[in-house]
Amino acid sequence: MSNSSPPDRHRLGRRALVAAAATTFAMPATAATPDPAITTLPDWSQSLGDGVQAHPYGVPSPFEKHVIRRDVEWLTAGQQSSVNFTPIHALDGTITPNGLCFERHHSGVAAVDPDQHRLMIHGMVAKPVVLTMQDLKRLPRSNRIYFLECAANSGMEWRGAQLNGAQFTHGMIHNVQYTGVSLRSVFEALGIDPRAKWVMAEGADAAGLNRSIPLAKAMDDCMLAFAMNGEALRPEQGYPLRLVVPGWQGNMWVKWLRRLKIGDAPWETREETSKYTDLLADGRARRSTFVMDAKSVITSPSPQTAASPKGQMVISGIAWSGRGSVTRVDVSLDGGRNWQAARIDGPVQSLALVRFYADIDWNGQEMLLQSRAQDSTGYLQPSKNDLRKIRGVNSIYHNNGIQTWLLRGDGICENVEVS
Amino acid sequence: MSNSSPPDRHRLGRRALVAAAATTFAMPATAATPDPAITTLPDWSQSLGDGVQAHPYGVPSPFEKHVIRRDVEWLTAGQQSSVNFTPIHALDGTITPNGLCFERHHSGVAAVDPDQHRLMIHGMVAKPVVLTMQDLKRLPRSNRIYFLECAANSGMEWRGAQLNGAQFTHGMIHNVQYTGVSLRSVFEALGIDPRAKWVMAEGADAAGLNRSIPLAKAMDDCMLAFAMNGEALRPEQGYPLRLVVPGWQGNMWVKWLRRLKIGDAPWETREETSKYTDLLADGRARRSTFVMDAKSVITSPSPQTAASPKGQMVISGIAWSGRGSVTRVDVSLDGGRNWQAARIDGPVQSLALVRFYADIDWNGQEMLLQSRAQDSTGYLQPSKNDLRKIRGVNSIYHNNGIQTWLLRGDGICENVEVS
Repeated sequence: MSNSSPPDRHRLGRRALVAAAATTFAMPATAATPDPAITTLPDWSQSLGDGVQAHPYGVPSPFEKHVIRRDVEWLTAGQQSSVNFTPIHALDGTITPNGLCFERHHSGVAAVDPDQHRLMIHGMVAKPVVLTMQDLKRLPRSNRIYFLECAANSGMEWRGAQLNGAQFTHGMIHNVQYTGVSLRSVFEALGIDPRAKWVMAEGADAAGLNRSIPLAKAMDDCMLAFAMNGEALRPEQGYPLRLVVPGWQGNMWVKWLRRLKIGDAPWETREETSKYTDLLADGRARRSTFVMDAKSVITSPSPQTAASPKGQMVISGIAWSGRGSVTRVDVSLDGGRNWQAARIDGPVQSLALVRFYADIDWNGQEMLLQSRAQDSTGYLQPSKNDLRKIRGVNSIYHNNGIQTWLLRGDGICENVEVS
Repeated sequence: MSNSSPPDRHRLGRRALVAAAATTFAMPATAATPDPAITTLPDWSQSLGDGVQAHPYGVPSPFEKHVIRRDVEWLTAGQQSSVNFTPIHALDGTITPNGLCFERHHSGVAAVDPDQHRLMIHGMVAKPVVLTMQDLKRLPRSNRIYFLECAANSGMEWRGAQLNGAQFTHGMIHNVQYTGVSLRSVFEALGIDPRAKWVMAEGADAAGLNRSIPLAKAMDDCMLAFAMNGEALRPEQGYPLRLVVPGWQGNMWVKWLRRLKIGDAPWETREETSKYTDLLADGRARRSTFVMDAKSVITSPSPQTAASPKGQMVISGIAWSGRGSVTRVDVSLDGGRNWQAARIDGPVQSLALVRFYADIDWNGQEMLLQSRAQDSTGYLQPSKNDLRKIRGVNSIYHNNGIQTWLLRGDGICENVEVS
C-alpha cells in the first residue's frame, strides 16, 4: 500500500483551509494593543541561558511536565503486564514523539542487547536462517508512516462513559515513521513453501508473546523495523527489532522480535484465543478481528484540556483507519444532530493518522462535541450505541464508536453518552 | 507552497525500489542457519523488565547512548554563543527526533514561561497588537514538514577537509513537522501598509537576536510555530514560539519570538551585516543570501559509522533544497567519475529533507563515496572546488559542495578532498 498523499484528498484539505481562513480569520477579541508604558523585561531576556552541552539528548520545557504517558493504577494487577497512554489531549500535528508513544507490555520492557539479539526464520521455508541486526541492516530498507492502535483502545467505554480524558479513552495509539526491511523481500529470498498460509511472530521478552499472522498480510506490507522517527526503536517499542503490521491491532506488532515461523495453520496462541477475541452477547466470540476500523476523537478541547473563554476556538482531533486512508472527518457541536466537514491538515497517507480541525466561534453555551471519520472504503465511523446493538457490551476490544465530550460553559469537558 | 508528495517523484521512488529489490535482494552471506544445540536464553527472556511507570517520558536504550548532539569545544569561546550538531550519522528516515535537533544560540537557551510570553506586532500596520500564546492558539493552524539548515553548516570545509564526521560537517540540519499559524493570515487580519516591504523578527533571549525578512517571504509560507513533531517546541528550539522561514537559513527562524515589526527597508542588524554575509576573495561580500541551495551528504557509512565487512551494503544519506523539492540524488563510488541514481524512499515534499539509499555489493576495496542532489528548479549540487572558484575560501556560510568520504578496506571512513 502506498504512503503517498491521495491527490483528491489533499485538494479537499486545501480547499477547506482556504474556506476556513476566509470565513473565520480575525484577530482574537482578547488581543491587546501595545502599551508603551510597559518597559520591564522578563528574566530570560536579561541573562544567559543553558549552553550547548546542557542536554546532549534534549528534553521538553519544565512548563510541559504534565505532558507525559500516564497509567490507570486499578486497571491491572501489576506494572509489568500493563499499559500507559499517549497524552493525545496535549499533542498536535500527526507525528507522535517517541517518548510519548503509549506502552503495553506482558512481562515489562525487555532490555535487549542488539549485538546479542537474533531473529530466527524457520518452518515451511527452503532456507531457514538466524539473522543478526547487522545482517538485517545490509538489506534494502524503506520508510513508512503508520498508526499503531491497541485493540483495547476505548475498551472501557463499551459499558458507558467511564474514563474522563482523551488520553485514557483513546490514548492507546501512536503514529510514527518506521525504517526497516520489507518482510516480503526477506521471505521471497528464503523461499516460502507454496502450501504455507500463516506466520507465527514471537518476541524475546519473558512473555515470549506470540501471534499468528496470515502469510498474505506478511507478504503485503509488513516490515521488520529497527528505527522509529529517525532513531533506533525505543526499548518499550521493541528495541532493537519490531514487526510492523500496518492497520492491524497493536498486539500483532510483536516487539523484541526473535522468531518468525512459517506454517499452514494458525497456532491458536493465548493472545488470539482467550485474549484478542470479542465476546458477544450470546456467549460466542468474534475471532481474527485483526483490522482496526475507522475511528476519530476530538483531542482538544477534551476533559484534560480546558477551552479558552468564549470566542474563536480551534477544535482539534485525530482520525485513522486500518482499511485505507481517512477521506473525511465531520464534527458535530450538538451531539450528532448536525454535522460539518472538518478541515484535514497535514499529511494524508494510507494507514496513517490524520489531524483535523474545526475553527469555530464559541458563544460560551454548552456543546456536545463529536467527530466521525470516513475512510477510502466508504465506511463511516458508527455511534457507540449502534456498535452495542450488534456486539453487546461484553467486549474489551474494537470499540471505534463516536466519542462525545460535553463542553460546559466554564470551558471544562466531561466524557458523556448521548442516546 | 504545498507540502504534498509530487506524484511523479513518488512514482520514481517506487520504481527504483522495485528495481533495487529485484536486482540486489538476497540473504546476506553472513546469515547463519539455525543450530538446534543452542538452547540458552538471554537474561531479558527470563525476567520481568521495567513496568509502565518507569519512564513517563521515554528515553532511548542505554545501547544507543552514543547517539547524542555533540559540540566542538574549540569552535567557540563559550557554550552560550555556540552550536552543537545533530547526530545525522546515526539516524535514518526523514524525521529528526526533537531531542537530537542541533542547537545554535547567541545567549544560551531562554527559559520562557509561556503564560508570560507575548508577541508584539507593530510598525507599518493598521492594528498593532500584543498576542498571548492563548490568543495565537485560537487561530486556524496548519502542519508542515520543513528542513532547517544553519547557513554555517559545512562552513569549516571551505578551506579543505577538516572535521572527521558527518555529524560535524553536515549536522547543523534537522527536519521536523511544525504546527502553527500562517503569518500571512495574521498580517492580513492586521492590515499591512501597502508601502511595507520588510519585517523585523526579534527573539526574547538576552541576545534579542533580530533579522530582517522580506515581506514577500513572510506572506508566502512563513509560520508562527508552537509545536514540533506533535509536542510543544523544545526550549532550545524557541519554546513557546518560533518563526518558521521555510527553505531559508536557520538564523532567520527567530526563536522565542517576541516581536515582529513591519517596515519599508531592512534594519541592517548585526546578524545580516557583520554575520551571515559571505566574504569573497576580493574583499566584497555577498549579502541577502537567504536561501539554502540543494545539498546532500552520505550519512552511512561515514567517519563515525563504520561499514560492515565486504558484501551487501546499504549506503544511506539525506538531501534537501531551499528552492523546491529534491527530484534526484546520484551516488558515486569513485570520487565523481561515475554516478548512479540513488533510490529516494519516504516522503518527498517541497523544502523538506529526503532520505536516499544505494544498495550495493562491496568487494572490500577502497571507495570514494559522494552524493549529489538535484532539485525541482534543475539546479545540480556543485563540487567544492567549483564553489571555491566563484566564492573563494573566505566564506563561513553556504558551502553546499559535494562531500567525499574515503571508505577504507577496514570499513572506516575519512573526510577527504578530491581534485
